[in-house]
Amino acid sequence: MVKLLILGTGSMAVSHATNFQAAPDTELVAAVETDAARREAFGKQFGIENLFADLESAIAWGEFDAVANVTPDAVHYPTTMRLIAAGKHVFCEKPLATSYPLALEMADAAEAKGIINMVNFTYRNSPALQKARELVRSGAIGDIRYFEASYLQSWLVSKAWGDWRTESRWLWRLSSQHGSKGVLGDVGVHIVDFASFGADTDIVAVDSRLKTFHKADGDKIGEYPLDANDSAVMTAEFANGALGTITATRFATGHANDLTLRIFGTSGGMEVKTDGKTSALRICEGPEIDTFGWETVECPPVPTTYERFAKACNTGVNGEPDFRRAAEVQRILDLCFAQEATRALHAAAPATAAE
Amino acid sequence: MVKLLILGTGSMAVSHATNFQAAPDTELVAAVETDAARREAFGKQFGIENLFADLESAIAWGEFDAVANVTPDAVHYPTTMRLIAAGKHVFCEKPLATSYPLALEMADAAEAKGIINMVNFTYRNSPALQKARELVRSGAIGDIRYFEASYLQSWLVSKAWGDWRTESRWLWRLSSQHGSKGVLGDVGVHIVDFASFGADTDIVAVDSRLKTFHKADGDKIGEYPLDANDSAVMTAEFANGALGTITATRFATGHANDLTLRIFGTSGGMEVKTDGKTSALRICEGPEIDTFGWETVECPPVPTTYERFAKACNTGVNGEPDFRRAAEVQRILDLCFAQEATRALHAAAPATAAE
Amino acid sequence: MVKLLILGTGSMAVSHATNFQAAPDTELVAAVETDAARREAFGKQFGIENLFADLESAIAWGEFDAVANVTPDAVHYPTTMRLIAAGKHVFCEKPLATSYPLALEMADAAEAKGIINMVNFTYRNSPALQKARELVRSGAIGDIRYFEASYLQSWLVSKAWGDWRTESRWLWRLSSQHGSKGVLGDVGVHIVDFASFGADTDIVAVDSRLKTFHKADGDKIGEYPLDANDSAVMTAEFANGALGTITATRFATGHANDLTLRIFGTSGGMEVKTDGKTSALRICEGPEIDTFGWETVECPPVPTTYERFAKACNTGVNGEPDFRRAAEVQRILDLCFAQEATRALHAAAPATAAE
Amino acid sequence: MVKLLILGTGSMAVSHATNFQAAPDTELVAAVETDAARREAFGKQFGIENLFADLESAIAWGEFDAVANVTPDAVHYPTTMRLIAAGKHVFCEKPLATSYPLALEMADAAEAKGIINMVNFTYRNSPALQKARELVRSGAIGDIRYFEASYLQSWLVSKAWGDWRTESRWLWRLSSQHGSKGVLGDVGVHIVDFASFGADTDIVAVDSRLKTFHKADGDKIGEYPLDANDSAVMTAEFANGALGTITATRFATGHANDLTLRIFGTSGGMEVKTDGKTSALRICEGPEIDTFGWETVECPPVPTTYERFAKACNTGVNGEPDFRRAAEVQRILDLCFAQEATRALHAAAPATAAE
Repeated sequence: MVKLLILGTGSMAVSHATNFQAAPDTELVAAVETDAARREAFGKQFGIENLFADLESAIAWGEFDAVANVTPDAVHYPTTMRLIAAGKHVFCEKPLATSYPLALEMADAAEAKGIINMVNFTYRNSPALQKARELVRSGAIGDIRYFEASYLQSWLVSKAWGDWRTESRWLWRLSSQHGSKGVLGDVGVHIVDFASFGADTDIVAVDSRLKTFHKADGDKIGEYPLDANDSAVMTAEFANGALGTITATRFATGHANDLTLRIFGTSGGMEVKTDGKTSALRICEGPEIDTFGWETVECPPVPTTYERFAKACNTGVNGEPDFRRAAEVQRILDLCFAQEATRALHAAAPATAAE
Repeated sequence: MVKLLILGTGSMAVSHATNFQAAPDTELVAAVETDAARREAFGKQFGIENLFADLESAIAWGEFDAVANVTPDAVHYPTTMRLIAAGKHVFCEKPLATSYPLALEMADAAEAKGIINMVNFTYRNSPALQKARELVRSGAIGDIRYFEASYLQSWLVSKAWGDWRTESRWLWRLSSQHGSKGVLGDVGVHIVDFASFGADTDIVAVDSRLKTFHKADGDKIGEYPLDANDSAVMTAEFANGALGTITATRFATGHANDLTLRIFGTSGGMEVKTDGKTSALRICEGPEIDTFGWETVECPPVPTTYERFAKACNTGVNGEPDFRRAAEVQRILDLCFAQEATRALHAAAPATAAE
Repeated sequence: MVKLLILGTGSMAVSHATNFQAAPDTELVAAVETDAARREAFGKQFGIENLFADLESAIAWGEFDAVANVTPDAVHYPTTMRLIAAGKHVFCEKPLATSYPLALEMADAAEAKGIINMVNFTYRNSPALQKARELVRSGAIGDIRYFEASYLQSWLVSKAWGDWRTESRWLWRLSSQHGSKGVLGDVGVHIVDFASFGADTDIVAVDSRLKTFHKADGDKIGEYPLDANDSAVMTAEFANGALGTITATRFATGHANDLTLRIFGTSGGMEVKTDGKTSALRICEGPEIDTFGWETVECPPVPTTYERFAKACNTGVNGEPDFRRAAEVQRILDLCFAQEATRALHAAAPATAAE
Repeated sequence: MVKLLILGTGSMAVSHATNFQAAPDTELVAAVETDAARREAFGKQFGIENLFADLESAIAWGEFDAVANVTPDAVHYPTTMRLIAAGKHVFCEKPLATSYPLALEMADAAEAKGIINMVNFTYRNSPALQKARELVRSGAIGDIRYFEASYLQSWLVSKAWGDWRTESRWLWRLSSQHGSKGVLGDVGVHIVDFASFGADTDIVAVDSRLKTFHKADGDKIGEYPLDANDSAVMTAEFANGALGTITATRFATGHANDLTLRIFGTSGGMEVKTDGKTSALRICEGPEIDTFGWETVECPPVPTTYERFAKACNTGVNGEPDFRRAAEVQRILDLCFAQEATRALHAAAPATAAE
């Protein structure tokens, strides 16, 4: 029975608490929240009695084994490092850190301390993705040669999810000053992990291009400068040399929230699709590679990241995706940003005419 | 009535002759072929009486207005330049030339002389592509923001088209020594043109990665070193800043010959699909951008590149795709090759240890 | 008579105070320093009576026209923006800011407000540099085609300036955590400005490579991780297309502090050399371009940056180098860092093996 | 006693014949030249009796051990491959081949056959270069950290060597159509070899920029399009991580033909200078690294490349620089060209406006 503390009580924390309450052998024992009113409300909602105003008080108390870190992105690093030092298992929201060096430090520290360390890449919960990976490992499609992975949203065009022009829950995602790393940081991390996990391989090379489109007068709405990327496209290479593309956009008009991974190997091809709620897998293999027939594959349910973290804590065997994997995803993000910065600074006209 | 000469009598020439015979106001008057037996056979097959062993004899005779240039790729340049000098209209097989500077020279010469000049990008014959472009121009999907274009084949895996390991018609396509520029030169040119034409825009930036996979002992079969690229992936940018990907592969197991163009704009999205025989167009626009509904669009038949060349000769108004467009496609190909050469030469270990 | 406030009282501030006391029509009226003991000592040393513990108190008092900003690098931006808002002229130590966007914001604000704004690139005080530029503008060497600019130090090898292994005044320069941007930030900014100013042109393209060498066990000495760059090399292009190199290193054993600029044009060549104390200029021009003879050029004394700032304040005509120029230098630095980050992140091995 | 055949009888051949006649244990036994008059004149000049109109006749005769290959650049590959097959030793003029793959094939073939194979990088004949390398290997300057290598000419400005505007011996060097690879192919190969040899290391990374300046109306003089590069600048990295620059230009007004290599290590610095006739070496080491003193080093005479080839043939022990080294230099050249092609094709405006 793992005793869990929830660190932070925002909307993602509600999701964590709900999922962990439903997970076997897991007990919500405490929560940390600086705002008193929200702290009390959260405690009441989930029947949590031990409520703390800061992390240090909770650590001083100490009656917990593991933490669901649902703090803002920039706070993941200091809080997680403190928890590792205290020997607590950590389940961290994505992104693990705001840069590759910090993420690497977190992975190193967690492994050195021997704690359970996992990151909440929720699309791992897709049965079709897990089944696809299982088929890849069984050799069903041979050696992968080519792939396409995309994460398509359209909330910059569609009003289905509300109006980004007037709602702060969308506006902050368009502004680096408000902590956003754009579509790349928001959902690009998911599709990078999705592609690499589904294909059961590392990504060894990436060339990317990011773009922020003009969306408002002065590229600003209220206090939000609209400078975060709207689309991110990459060419990428897997460890075995397979070549492909990984993309994410908020401008795929006609798509609400669609992740697709298509992987093609020397003896078959597969397509994984999910919208986060349901997932589906199709395959072309065997004699059908000559007739171009595709079949739907049955995908049994899979445990969630929450359940897998709880199980890891209870068994002492670390689960996936771990901090090291999250650090690797962060490396790819940092690389995309460095490439785009290089491109932008190159293109900037010299600020001065020769005097 | 345009009098047409067919230059070269290989398998593509049969297709040209057949199409031009069916085109209005067009008469096949002559053919040039060095091989006597093939020359006679071709003449007989299409009822062509004026047969020449070389281009110079045909030009000396002179009784033709236009030429379908169906010679090998490397011969396009010298023969076309000769024909331009002689004032003949030219319909050239793709690729127009083997390099951007040569293609540019051909475009300049053709325009300076004022002849009709067109290139046979056959996928322009897709009703769905032409309709999509028409809709883009009408503003149906607003300003394009994101796109995906792919050309998927799988003949390196599938036996549906025969066995590349033993058939020279496939093996030469895998070998630069035999004139191949790999999948990029073979079908990549089509998808570059397809994407740019369908979206009604220029491509202003490209970053690509090419890959040749190990396919045989010593990467060689008989006289064919297997060094030409099997997959080509690009990130690309349209003139208005729209970002996307353009890809081509011979390793998309499960796909025979599938071209897809998906373009997403500020007020709608479209998807064009063709396998070269049929084509289809779907759109999401209007209120459906909030409900994510897609509709099929009716696409009326369109004149073929052959018919449009014949019409251009008869009217004196140049048609599309012209030499300049083909030169631009060639620029993008050359850029892909230069980028890959840079990458490969960078990666090559120094040939010597320090002495 | 300009009334000057010195903001910060470290070792560079002594140099500023000494120079401004000697400048015509300039009066040191105040200083700001948080540390009481240092504040008093500085006041006594330069006979300054108005001493403030913080900038806001000084602004509230208000009896000054201009400020020499000698605060730590990261403090330049907030203090200067505050001073611009208060309508004070600002002479800022280099680097103007810690990033291009901030530097650009400072230049924009200073120009919008109409204040005098200058940056202390001290090598502008070299008579040979000023004379070389004058000769370039007079057309003495024609159009520049090729150049070499280098800043050579060797304090990582030589003990002439002390031992970096044990002295904090050197150790901090090796550590990004302590605010260092390595040799590029330390003296690279000077050579970039030196090259561009001497050649009277903008730098329109840069490709750079930075390197940090292993210098201690664990790349760390005490609290100083030794991660800042030791050498920086660039290929660069001037606005007219002239090609050349710009370099800076702390590993040029045999050189204490040597700046060299060599510029070659269509009718002559020049070489500027300075060690910060003396400077010399040689030229090859006229008939000597056929005999390869070089002559020494007499260089009259030039006013210092301090004198020119004082004069600018007194006349109301902004001087050089201004904030905009400093922003442009910062753009080039940021570009070098982005390129190196791209390279490093590309080269980093994936953090995980495929799970 | 090695029996030598001279293949080709142009002006470089005269230099080869003169040098080989003076070399110990070497006999000029034959020459090959297609032009009868030149063949006879060359035979008479050097007292060579066996004169052949083509290489095949000479090989059929067979009475020679070794060949000085002084044919045009593009002919090096086929003739050398033929000679290797015939088991003859080969001393080839630089560049070994016109591309890296061909050069690599020549190195592989020569080594497989076990023949003596050398390339005539003449600046290896500088006593100062050989001495510098010896000092590097003895550890005199410790580990190299920084370097500058430059090859400065100015014949595009100076008339000391004649007028390039009217003399074909210069004009062809400006035109790729006439076989030129510009300053990079002409003398850049020397400085690349010079730097790497003097520093006793491989070059493991290169980023370059090439430039061709506008020099005549229409960038053409007579039959010579003036498109070959005039300046080439590189940042480069040695195998141990040392960073530096390698440059070559025809626009260094004031310099006739000056090669400089400056290498800086953890315990000393050195400067090698040569104009091809004399060479000089200076060093700063020992206590002088703290006083910045430089001393001139005595450099004993060294055997020439010709003498070393003759000795290698007589002893059976291959000499330096061998084909593999020349292939490595060629790799770096090819890389520079690929990088510049990428840059140029990127920058080219799309050839068409959207139709």
